[in-house]
Amino acid sequence: MTRIEADPALPIIRITRDFRATPERLLRAHTDPELYARWVGPDGMHTRIEQWDARTGGSYRFVSVRDGAEYAFRGCFHEIRPDRIVRTFTWEGDPDGVALETLRFEDLGGGTTRLHTQSLVESFESRDAWLRSGMETGLDDGYAKLERMLADGTV
Amino acid sequence: MTRIEADPALPIIRITRDFRATPERLLRAHTDPELYARWVGPDGMHTRIEQWDARTGGSYRFVSVRDGAEYAFRGCFHEIRPDRIVRTFTWEGDPDGVALETLRFEDLGGGTTRLHTQSLVESFESRDAWLRSGMETGLDDGYAKLERMLADGTV
Repeated sequence: MTRIEADPALPIIRITRDFRATPERLLRAHTDPELYARWVGPDGMHTRIEQWDARTGGSYRFVSVRDGAEYAFRGCFHEIRPDRIVRTFTWEGDPDGVALETLRFEDLGGGTTRLHTQSLVESFESRDAWLRSGMETGLDDGYAKLERMLADGTV
Repeated sequence: MTRIEADPALPIIRITRDFRATPERLLRAHTDPELYARWVGPDGMHTRIEQWDARTGGSYRFVSVRDGAEYAFRGCFHEIRPDRIVRTFTWEGDPDGVALETLRFEDLGGGTTRLHTQSLVESFESRDAWLRSGMETGLDDGYAKLERMLADGTV
């Protein structure tokens, strides 16, 4: 299951989920644009990659579409390495809102990896708006798709 | 004068300083690598730009040298626009420490611009370590150099 926690003292959301995959495969699922577009976001939403350069110092932009409505997201990759991705993240509907996201791939052994995602924003108001935005459904649906892709060998 | 404030409730440092310059000139001083290298950092320190691509989605790396000791800094530019720069910032001596920095150029009219810098990190410990690191001297010296470059027309 996906665990989502709001830090009591910091404007941070922490998300944890275990996957039946090595860190390498989980990193690939987050850095290969075609794979990423296939699992990210809630069911019924289709994602189109507009720009993608998944390396330290690169950047990205993607658009998610549902029922004709488009939601665009963009940011830069501060660092990509085997156990960690650090990137910025903005929903263009709120262009001055920026999150600093850190994804860590913790190898638990036996083919299981724990994904730790930390999302840091500049205020508790922004943080709580994210928590109320339906992000939980998007994450759960997306990670379930990713699990199926790991199970059937797509990743 | 430079005003440096630690937010009481958030892991944020806010720095404010007025300059006798338009926002355009102040933006140029922060995005042109040759100009930036001439003013950033404390007196007696020399800065060498290693990599610099000052546009939305670009990245940078520079090395500051004093008495043979080198301090390297790097990050990516989340956004650059006339009134705002958002970038990540890491001192490579603490490679997993990442700050999300927002610089705003507020036009006060009459040829004066207020620079608002906000630096957001993931813990109060990191924030307070920055405050204890001598950043105040570095900022004051650097901004004094920048003021001289604005006054003599270098920028």
